[in-house]
Amino acid sequence: MKTLKTQVAIIGAGPSGLLLGQLLHRAGIQTLILERQTPDYVKGRIRAGVLEQGMVELLHQAGVGRRMDAEGMVHEGFELALNGRRVAIDLKTLTGGKTVMIYGQTEVTRDLMAARQAAGAITLYEARNVQPHDLKSPQPWLTFEHAGESFRLECDYIAGCDGFHGVSRQSIPHGQLKIFERVYPFGWLGLLAETPPIHDELVYAKHERGFALCSMRSPTRSRYYLQVPAEEAVDDWSDQRFWAELKARLPEELAAGLVTGPSIEKSIAPLRSFVVEPMQYGRLFLLGDAAHIVPPTGAKGLNLAASDVSTLFNILLKVYREGRVELLEKYSQVCLRRVWKAERFSWWMTSMLHQFPESDDFSQRIAQSELEYFIDSEAGRKTIAENYVGLPYEAIE
Amino acid sequence: MKTLKTQVAIIGAGPSGLLLGQLLHRAGIQTLILERQTPDYVKGRIRAGVLEQGMVELLHQAGVGRRMDAEGMVHEGFELALNGRRVAIDLKTLTGGKTVMIYGQTEVTRDLMAARQAAGAITLYEARNVQPHDLKSPQPWLTFEHAGESFRLECDYIAGCDGFHGVSRQSIPHGQLKIFERVYPFGWLGLLAETPPIHDELVYAKHERGFALCSMRSPTRSRYYLQVPAEEAVDDWSDQRFWAELKARLPEELAAGLVTGPSIEKSIAPLRSFVVEPMQYGRLFLLGDAAHIVPPTGAKGLNLAASDVSTLFNILLKVYREGRVELLEKYSQVCLRRVWKAERFSWWMTSMLHQFPESDDFSQRIAQSELEYFIDSEAGRKTIAENYVGLPYEAIE
Repeated sequence: MKTLKTQVAIIGAGPSGLLLGQLLHRAGIQTLILERQTPDYVKGRIRAGVLEQGMVELLHQAGVGRRMDAEGMVHEGFELALNGRRVAIDLKTLTGGKTVMIYGQTEVTRDLMAARQAAGAITLYEARNVQPHDLKSPQPWLTFEHAGESFRLECDYIAGCDGFHGVSRQSIPHGQLKIFERVYPFGWLGLLAETPPIHDELVYAKHERGFALCSMRSPTRSRYYLQVPAEEAVDDWSDQRFWAELKARLPEELAAGLVTGPSIEKSIAPLRSFVVEPMQYGRLFLLGDAAHIVPPTGAKGLNLAASDVSTLFNILLKVYREGRVELLEKYSQVCLRRVWKAERFSWWMTSMLHQFPESDDFSQRIAQSELEYFIDSEAGRKTIAENYVGLPYEAIE
Repeated sequence: MKTLKTQVAIIGAGPSGLLLGQLLHRAGIQTLILERQTPDYVKGRIRAGVLEQGMVELLHQAGVGRRMDAEGMVHEGFELALNGRRVAIDLKTLTGGKTVMIYGQTEVTRDLMAARQAAGAITLYEARNVQPHDLKSPQPWLTFEHAGESFRLECDYIAGCDGFHGVSRQSIPHGQLKIFERVYPFGWLGLLAETPPIHDELVYAKHERGFALCSMRSPTRSRYYLQVPAEEAVDDWSDQRFWAELKARLPEELAAGLVTGPSIEKSIAPLRSFVVEPMQYGRLFLLGDAAHIVPPTGAKGLNLAASDVSTLFNILLKVYREGRVELLEKYSQVCLRRVWKAERFSWWMTSMLHQFPESDDFSQRIAQSELEYFIDSEAGRKTIAENYVGLPYEAIE
């Protein structure tokens, strides 16, 4: 078994692992990333596309903002379509100047991979059987296999950026984590197409047939979603059926302008709310989907991973530079304050905009009244806007 | 059987029936009020004590604001106590100048009774077996018994102001009303005492032992409430037990200043959300508790009755003066828009501040995060404040 050493071992080369790696590298802190998949697999994942201003700033701080600035689209608002009524949520005015950036997670990942490669920092792809050890000791270590050889990786800290199904959370002993969970009785059927978007802003549509979202990745690439029952099969949805159903859920004047085309990708994702507490165990820190999942309504998943990255990065910076080891214990509580607010907003947006098959009459009227109140009141619209652009990151002091 | 005639027959001499009667009387429209109870019984009911600015203005319009202005207490804010943390909700600043008036429902009723008597308008107390007839005809009528005689009362319109258990709603044929309802798994144990209030503002306290409210009727009369299980018996609560439990749910520095004393009244009320749609049937209009109930958190019950009164009064004014009979059909939809927003707020305040015995872990964290977000965000506090002082009345045009 060969022995390797690094300061911070990162499990997972998705956007959060790569972003943490890049920030630490630029601060002179050594990292090694272990990734189970191939680079092409990682790049191929179609995910989120709405970046909060805090994440945009973090990407700039990591030195990977150039292509995003050139190709990303700054959105100053989004639209709600409520059974035909169109309501503009003017993010910029309502938040005193904040906006969001439309730039696909795939592109963020590519930029970060290129930056890491250019920096000469190491990512070991196709690392098998990754297993953390001695998490409560001052010198944790990992074992894994790579290209037919067995390795031991010694480090100061381990960052678990390996998603919901990764080994990081699973390597924390049973009973140490409290799980909070909500599964929704529906999923999102997503379709990617090389067609111009239906509108210059995102459209979140509530309709008695179910929720729909008109999103985009670029001026020529659209991403649409439909609420479907949880047990739905993607094979039952021809492109034709998808486009017809989408049109039926949108206001007529919008639907009239829909440009359809063959799907590049089509898949169904379940909707789930999930949080573990705490988000750390000894020297292992959980980030992003490894610690929490939000339903995609509200576009908080990737952004929440970015704020975890920011928190851990700023703590590690003070630990390595100023010896402030007492900050390590604060990681989970700092993250969770923001995580729960984003979980709350994602749950709320999901509850407001979807049809719930088993909802009683009273709950339905309350949901309708809640949405109407929040849209008709300026203070209400502000609460939607300030959550959508992202609540501020907490400073580490 | 003797026959009587009036323009608007009002069932119920509580605050909404009396207020409607007074407004119509001053506009030269004849009314006759039928009340099942005695005047002393009506005056003896201990109810709400927080009046929205819209209701205060309506009482002025009815010419009964003088004693309220002299003896009522204008509150510019209230306090939330969240497991010990004290948060001021500055209503006046958050709403651009709006306040609420602390003045007991009992006092409002007394003022309205005196004004009606002074005006020489008739209220028949102890009217028995009141029954509306021919509601869909242009000439509805009522039968009732009074002082041993049978009467027939002919009128143009009937206003049902006789509360949740009254005959008005029950006289609408089965199947014409859709009912929306939520029953909460707890009640409020209320205690009235001739002691100075604990604080100069109302205090809404969320605590792991359950919700508590510190309210008042005057500078020398306090009204306190405790969340108790729905099946609780008032006899199990000595004054001593009540005061001890109240102290345990309040922040220490507040609890230290509590002045206790013998209770004048002590009772348990269940918490319920209830709405019927529509709020009218032919020439019968339902107002206040006859059409909707809110849980008392948020102090909306009496105020919602007042906005129904305002709506019906303004419609009848245009009907009698301008012949705008088409407005009659709009009564229910105008009322319900505001009713549902108040139902939403009352449900929300109740959900946020009470302990729910069967709530799952995820729901508890969401409720906690929601409350923290709304309190920490200025926009969030504004949504609480603007609902608490009362959303605007809709103009009838």
